[in-house]
Amino acid sequence: MDVGFIGLGGMGRAMARRLLAAGHTVRVWNRSPEPVAELVAEGATAAGTPAEAFEAQVVVSMLADDRVVESLLLDEELLSGARAVAHANMATVSPALARRAAELHARHGIGYVAAPVLGRTDVAAAGNLNILAAGPSAELDRLAPLFEAMGRRTWPLGEDPAAANVAKISANFLLVSAIEAFSEAAALAEANGLAPAALLEVLTDSLFPGPVYAGYGAMITRQTFEPAGFRLALGLKDVNLALEAGADTQVPLPLASLLRDSLLQAIAHGHGEQDLAAISTTSRTRAGI
Amino acid sequence: MDVGFIGLGGMGRAMARRLLAAGHTVRVWNRSPEPVAELVAEGATAAGTPAEAFEAQVVVSMLADDRVVESLLLDEELLSGARAVAHANMATVSPALARRAAELHARHGIGYVAAPVLGRTDVAAAGNLNILAAGPSAELDRLAPLFEAMGRRTWPLGEDPAAANVAKISANFLLVSAIEAFSEAAALAEANGLAPAALLEVLTDSLFPGPVYAGYGAMITRQTFEPAGFRLALGLKDVNLALEAGADTQVPLPLASLLRDSLLQAIAHGHGEQDLAAISTTSRTRAGI
Amino acid sequence: MDVGFIGLGGMGRAMARRLLAAGHTVRVWNRSPEPVAELVAEGATAAGTPAEAFEAQVVVSMLADDRVVESLLLDEELLSGARAVAHANMATVSPALARRAAELHARHGIGYVAAPVLGRTDVAAAGNLNILAAGPSAELDRLAPLFEAMGRRTWPLGEDPAAANVAKISANFLLVSAIEAFSEAAALAEANGLAPAALLEVLTDSLFPGPVYAGYGAMITRQTFEPAGFRLALGLKDVNLALEAGADTQVPLPLASLLRDSLLQAIAHGHGEQDLAAISTTSRTRAGI
Amino acid sequence: MDVGFIGLGGMGRAMARRLLAAGHTVRVWNRSPEPVAELVAEGATAAGTPAEAFEAQVVVSMLADDRVVESLLLDEELLSGARAVAHANMATVSPALARRAAELHARHGIGYVAAPVLGRTDVAAAGNLNILAAGPSAELDRLAPLFEAMGRRTWPLGEDPAAANVAKISANFLLVSAIEAFSEAAALAEANGLAPAALLEVLTDSLFPGPVYAGYGAMITRQTFEPAGFRLALGLKDVNLALEAGADTQVPLPLASLLRDSLLQAIAHGHGEQDLAAISTTSRTRAGI
Repeated sequence: MDVGFIGLGGMGRAMARRLLAAGHTVRVWNRSPEPVAELVAEGATAAGTPAEAFEAQVVVSMLADDRVVESLLLDEELLSGARAVAHANMATVSPALARRAAELHARHGIGYVAAPVLGRTDVAAAGNLNILAAGPSAELDRLAPLFEAMGRRTWPLGEDPAAANVAKISANFLLVSAIEAFSEAAALAEANGLAPAALLEVLTDSLFPGPVYAGYGAMITRQTFEPAGFRLALGLKDVNLALEAGADTQVPLPLASLLRDSLLQAIAHGHGEQDLAAISTTSRTRAGI
Repeated sequence: MDVGFIGLGGMGRAMARRLLAAGHTVRVWNRSPEPVAELVAEGATAAGTPAEAFEAQVVVSMLADDRVVESLLLDEELLSGARAVAHANMATVSPALARRAAELHARHGIGYVAAPVLGRTDVAAAGNLNILAAGPSAELDRLAPLFEAMGRRTWPLGEDPAAANVAKISANFLLVSAIEAFSEAAALAEANGLAPAALLEVLTDSLFPGPVYAGYGAMITRQTFEPAGFRLALGLKDVNLALEAGADTQVPLPLASLLRDSLLQAIAHGHGEQDLAAISTTSRTRAGI
Repeated sequence: MDVGFIGLGGMGRAMARRLLAAGHTVRVWNRSPEPVAELVAEGATAAGTPAEAFEAQVVVSMLADDRVVESLLLDEELLSGARAVAHANMATVSPALARRAAELHARHGIGYVAAPVLGRTDVAAAGNLNILAAGPSAELDRLAPLFEAMGRRTWPLGEDPAAANVAKISANFLLVSAIEAFSEAAALAEANGLAPAALLEVLTDSLFPGPVYAGYGAMITRQTFEPAGFRLALGLKDVNLALEAGADTQVPLPLASLLRDSLLQAIAHGHGEQDLAAISTTSRTRAGI
Repeated sequence: MDVGFIGLGGMGRAMARRLLAAGHTVRVWNRSPEPVAELVAEGATAAGTPAEAFEAQVVVSMLADDRVVESLLLDEELLSGARAVAHANMATVSPALARRAAELHARHGIGYVAAPVLGRTDVAAAGNLNILAAGPSAELDRLAPLFEAMGRRTWPLGEDPAAANVAKISANFLLVSAIEAFSEAAALAEANGLAPAALLEVLTDSLFPGPVYAGYGAMITRQTFEPAGFRLALGLKDVNLALEAGADTQVPLPLASLLRDSLLQAIAHGHGEQDLAAISTTSRTRAGI
């Protein structure tokens, strides 16, 4: 397929490569030129502007946040001039933005699909992302080959793009919740003479298998937060998305509020660029450990 | 081995049966007589008093809570007259009680082992419990055959019995945390047009495999809380144990505080005897769903 | 003085009238025409646009929130064409907006003063507002006669306008905190057979004199929330301002987070247009009262 | 009147002196002998045991907490041998204890009155306490002259003693709430360049007059927490009483939960013996100030 690809951060690069590897034609755009050059060397063509990327048959975008999507892509001129018939926004953005985007794209005859992903860059590089996809079913069908190239499984979540964003935000909210819970338990254990690592071993072999508890738990028991697999400041971004989605639909989320405050404290103490696991420092600070 | 077994609730009966099945001699005591008769019919002998159970070589107890353990077993007269050389308290009690119990047992030459378990009655019946054990290593060795009969794995957590209770309390704290987190996410999803069941399917196939999210999550997506696999009121008991252990060692646990308030609200609304998953009703009530 | 006055809501009208009564010349602008006509009948002149109001010597504005101020007044064209030498923004807005506004005004040679007020419309009508004022001291001096006409006392809070906004936001945060605290206590009292009104009488005659506890407390003990002296939805706006200011400066405010969740719940249950005292319904809902 | 007085801590001594000054006959008992000697030198007589104090016509007690009252005074033998016809327990204890105490006293024909007080030792010394009194009305009448000698005003709160304890606990809960709210606001102010002392001056002259905000606020703005007018550890005791009363009657108190965690953190950081105002250190720690 002829694909425009917008946004070549760590995730975007890995995903665009998967498309190239699967034989798709990819025109890439990025604000800074280096990643474009890198991808062009691997077989992509360069788009000079987002509008050039929208001359492809379909567009995939992977930008940083609501603000960037809003300023670059939710643009009447861009969309009215586009040749693309579908746009898959795979970034973690708000359901509110998805609603605005879907309405605006529809007005210009472009199908808008929200398709945020679960998985970090290594997972993206291996084509093993979980893709949470929602939008008009014809567009979901059309984009299916691209999603297959990028993910291990595509989860169809209905016709309303916002639903996919809610799913992604919820997943990350649960992720941060699990880390906070283990952080508090680890502080309790330590203060009571139980090694957090011993506690973690029991938990991950019984109630809590899977990558989250094991992975973040190991960083917490070692209190080493670098390199940052998932930056703590991004965790705050995602928790804020949950809180805003809750506010927009009148759903109080007291646990998300608590996470926000812990994350803010971690940032105030200089952990914003470290891994999300550094939220555990607040549990220790509270206890004077 | 010659074992005294005290406390024949649902868990205790299943565990005592495993001991009988493994060929141990078991003298059982229980406050109400019916479970005693039941076990005697299966090969146990009846102890008329806790003291008679303490005439065995080792004692296993599985009582309801701190108060019951305190009033029945932390008794100078009982312990001074005991023939037992070791006592494995397998109930979920406070680390503070474990410390008092260890000291008192030691004074009477009895090794005190805390050995709380992970798993419900069906897991106990299958001999698949995870046993979190801490206490003098000689006693852990002595009791190993009994633990093997009852569990899939014994986790040695050191010489201080309190550590095993902290581990068990932490596990249940993480359990309730995970349920609260999914409950809030499910309310957010529902208010945003995403079916909680669809969200659950994504989560359990990606970030959160294992029995906790799948099992409690299914009850939450259906909003059916009976039969109660784990009574909500017991969940509050365990969260309170975490908060007390935190208070005793000056470890604030704001997430546990939040869980306590949600559980209290669920009880105020009549869900105390339902399954722990009914904590999700509070997320819905907050949102006016 | 020759004053442009922008924003004739309930507060703005009362404040503009005080300026007229003190003999100032007032050109008024408002989005909807009725309040303008009303004030013109009382001696003001009408400004057809905000720019016309900025032709006066000084401008006072009293608009709804950040968004409205941003779109109407933080405008290069407006400010570059202005004859006014000072602008007192008396609305409750964010410190972040104050910082942007001060910078932008300074670029156009206009002194920007933040001067939010404590007091509702009846207090404004009586000229008894407390005015929290911060900005360049020359401008504070220049505006002093206007503040005197509108308030009982002007509190100078330094050269940085943002400081005045922080003070105002803090005051309202404390206000909502006090109401939440009494709401929880009233629910506890009621559940324990103590009439909340009796509790209120003790408190206001001892530890907590003053208008806040007495006034909101009386609404809470009667559970009547209309007419709304201070709309609950505005209370949420102000708590959100506190949380945003905290986020911008890395100051976690867990109590503000709690208030936000209670207010959201009250809104979800239909109390958004009632008085702030309706936050007490959430304490009762939690307890199943 | 012939009064037995039990418990001569700082408050008890000041109150017993007021009774002596008003011409009552007072038999004093205290666990440690020094305060007894002190009061005897001022005209009291010494009681060798609590039982001797209960030989007076009425008894006033002012002991530290539930546990001490329970172990010293809720004693069948003591009460069955008592000559006293009424007992006013003026300490801050739980409503649950009041219920047990009332029932037990009634069985022995003694009227039990709960009469906790608002005010510290200096207020007690001046006879200016607010006395929150509940119990059988005949006993309230009988004890009125004693309350008049000790307080500025007696607040009759009905026939159920527990109601008076709920009122006192609520008052202290509101007190700690106000201090936490101002602490968070002060941290926000400081991080935004507004002097907390300037904020405090505005607040206490407008929305929040009275001793609480002014007094604790001054300590917070100076960050000096000694001497301790009200020990922080006692504040935690009182917040715990609120939480327990809430748990007993199924009233979630999320703000009290938050206060408990802040107080625990302050204690973990070594502020337990300082003034309650030291709870403000946790707001600063969170913000990295």
